[in-house]
Amino acid sequence: MKDSIVKELENLIGEDWVIDDERLMEDYLSDETPSPVRPEADRDVILVKPKNSQEISEILKYANRKSISVVPRGAGTGLCGAAVPVQSSIILSMERLNDLIEVDEDNFTMTCQAGVTLEDILERVRESETLFFPPHPGDEGAQVGGLVVENAGGARAVKYGVLRNYVRGMEVVLPTGEITSLGGKVIKNNTGLDLMHLLIGSEGTLGIVSRVTLRLYPEPQASVSLIVPFEGRHEAIGTVPQILKQGMIPLAMEYMERDLVEKSAEHIGKKWPVREGDAYLYLVLTGQDKDSLYSKCERINETCDSRGSQDVLVAERRKDEEKILDIRSNIYTALEPESADILDVTVPITEIGRLLDEIDSIAEEHDLDIPVYGHAGDGNLHPHIRLKDGRKPSNMERIKDEIYEKTIDLGGVITGEHGIGKTRVKNLPQALDDHQISLMKKIKKVFDPNNILNPKTVVDIDED
Amino acid sequence: MKDSIVKELENLIGEDWVIDDERLMEDYLSDETPSPVRPEADRDVILVKPKNSQEISEILKYANRKSISVVPRGAGTGLCGAAVPVQSSIILSMERLNDLIEVDEDNFTMTCQAGVTLEDILERVRESETLFFPPHPGDEGAQVGGLVVENAGGARAVKYGVLRNYVRGMEVVLPTGEITSLGGKVIKNNTGLDLMHLLIGSEGTLGIVSRVTLRLYPEPQASVSLIVPFEGRHEAIGTVPQILKQGMIPLAMEYMERDLVEKSAEHIGKKWPVREGDAYLYLVLTGQDKDSLYSKCERINETCDSRGSQDVLVAERRKDEEKILDIRSNIYTALEPESADILDVTVPITEIGRLLDEIDSIAEEHDLDIPVYGHAGDGNLHPHIRLKDGRKPSNMERIKDEIYEKTIDLGGVITGEHGIGKTRVKNLPQALDDHQISLMKKIKKVFDPNNILNPKTVVDIDED
Repeated sequence: MKDSIVKELENLIGEDWVIDDERLMEDYLSDETPSPVRPEADRDVILVKPKNSQEISEILKYANRKSISVVPRGAGTGLCGAAVPVQSSIILSMERLNDLIEVDEDNFTMTCQAGVTLEDILERVRESETLFFPPHPGDEGAQVGGLVVENAGGARAVKYGVLRNYVRGMEVVLPTGEITSLGGKVIKNNTGLDLMHLLIGSEGTLGIVSRVTLRLYPEPQASVSLIVPFEGRHEAIGTVPQILKQGMIPLAMEYMERDLVEKSAEHIGKKWPVREGDAYLYLVLTGQDKDSLYSKCERINETCDSRGSQDVLVAERRKDEEKILDIRSNIYTALEPESADILDVTVPITEIGRLLDEIDSIAEEHDLDIPVYGHAGDGNLHPHIRLKDGRKPSNMERIKDEIYEKTIDLGGVITGEHGIGKTRVKNLPQALDDHQISLMKKIKKVFDPNNILNPKTVVDIDED
Repeated sequence: MKDSIVKELENLIGEDWVIDDERLMEDYLSDETPSPVRPEADRDVILVKPKNSQEISEILKYANRKSISVVPRGAGTGLCGAAVPVQSSIILSMERLNDLIEVDEDNFTMTCQAGVTLEDILERVRESETLFFPPHPGDEGAQVGGLVVENAGGARAVKYGVLRNYVRGMEVVLPTGEITSLGGKVIKNNTGLDLMHLLIGSEGTLGIVSRVTLRLYPEPQASVSLIVPFEGRHEAIGTVPQILKQGMIPLAMEYMERDLVEKSAEHIGKKWPVREGDAYLYLVLTGQDKDSLYSKCERINETCDSRGSQDVLVAERRKDEEKILDIRSNIYTALEPESADILDVTVPITEIGRLLDEIDSIAEEHDLDIPVYGHAGDGNLHPHIRLKDGRKPSNMERIKDEIYEKTIDLGGVITGEHGIGKTRVKNLPQALDDHQISLMKKIKKVFDPNNILNPKTVVDIDED
């Protein structure tokens, strides 16, 4: 059976691009999820690397005809197992669709194939010297197709929003093989039900996004990073709405605690530059002129001061700004080896302090360590459930349920940016009512009647 | 038959709120579309005014059981016939769901029932003295439910985007009667397929949005309006990307021509304050301090000057700013009595000049007058096809087709903000491929298996 499938796939895209030896595809079998998705025992996988949407279409038509599962895969930097095959599947890697097709400086757009990485995008906009792509959802190895279908967020989503806000157009290969184009370079578009916005965040279940047109911004001429130390978390968190009320929307507004930033700094051989405080707000402000940024910094300083902050660190030199960003970005990598799982809960910004307290209580009750940091400007927090004596806590699923329950009680959601993927499918009924899950399953069937594309992801229609 | 339906509806919501005399519902049978949707000859309508989502649910359950069409209706300010009944229907008016439930100043949200008007919203944020709701899609009598399901745009969509960008949560009554809540006050949410973003822009075909949570912004402390006169349209339009490249994103950036603004000014008994130029860019800049706005004005001035603009008019006093806005807003009302139809074509901003030229050629060829104005900052233009000798041009559909064709050739779409509704259903195959229309029809059937909710809108599933 497998041999005949391999043969057919080789006919479609050439034998160089079909790999059936599992030892040669180790990098394609997991993602960055600390608590990995367990494959079925008898799972058998074939890796294919098509070069364009036409080849993707051929593969999907064949797979659909034969009812073979296909798992689309970007760079595997995801955090919910969406790109991980759990059952016998064709793994469809997008790595060869790596053409950065066009930068249109007058329309502020970039069009690229789905396999182009965030690093490629950032480098290309840096070269232009006039353009800017604001979002920075962690790993720069991520591919743009993955960023779009996961609706990625990250720290720099406060001012301009998550990936959804950057997508103007896309080409999609439907599970039944048809290739279609949605949107374009236009800014406004009300032409029918918005399939493009349905595809964004669909985690590779409704179609394979093969090309994306992104919105770019003009490059900011000035940037300042601030670290504001507070004695305690409630002082820090409570200051967030006060800053926003002054009409300043920072590019990023992060919440971090001392032990985590020190750990991260040590992990990358650096030193955390602030002596005071245990709880920090980390802000990045951007604008078109230094003077107006300075006046904003002053007003932020006053606001924070009136709420009991300690001496604010202002970093202006690129080197200093990068050092802080580097320490912030590496909290995840520093914690990762000791993490049993990383969560992605999100609440209204006024409820962040309360959720942090609730998570502390849950940790104490179960005698665990659950450090939390995250995006204070948008309420998105990342609790890390630490390994206990080097092992995953035996009651981890119950602990997660408790955290999810408190999150939902506070008006929140179980995932703000990482997605449902395969790891959180079981939690969906806790978060959404039956009507919604039923609609999602039916929409999945509309796009993918034979359930070949990324099955058991977001919703599991086989379970019905 | 009608009597028994009226009786049943009276049982559900009380006899005061069921109207079956068509002479008493004249205001509910059309919208602002100049080229109205023709009702079927034997159409029979019943108007109901439920007071809450529970009553809406009861009505939909009954209608679904009996396969009776239901047309949800806000204030009837739409421009595509979406809220107009063409066949025998229950017209479901949202006017009694007019409770502005909550303003949450710390989370920057407002929650209101769907029948709350834009005027109510603007008044309430003005009262707060700290908040701001940027979008202004024309008629302030519009209801928020309508604004959301039509994904309304308007002039003030350049800086912060269209209505989609303001929706954080909603309550929806599904066509089968279930009530469900999507989103909330959270900023980031990746919990499953995004049904909320599918509902936005669905024009009352997938569910009745009964409550909305909107994102608010801090009130800008300073505002300036500029009128930049140019000799010709290409000088004006070509300047738009240059302004954006300086990193300034105005709240609004409009394109207007002399004859239209003079006509509009006369219509409302005012005088257009600019003597020079035939083509104008009208910009509104907002910010947190006057000084940085001034320096932005200077830079805009330089950019425009280098592209041949004449003396820029700067309006700072609220009265002066309002006068200009008033003249701009009334172009539509001034033209409306002489208009056979108003279009809503949208192209990438670099293609605006070319589309204007194409429309001029089409007008000349057919010996017609088709004045155009619109949102230069987002490529969204409103050509008015004028009446000829007081009558609709006999070949109007062909003229529209030609304009749509040119628009699509330039990478544009047939509707940027007004929607497909009932008037543009026939044009959908020109704009979208069969796969997309087929997916839309199937999604419609998922939500509304008996096709009772706003049939013949966006897609017509009866025609299959």
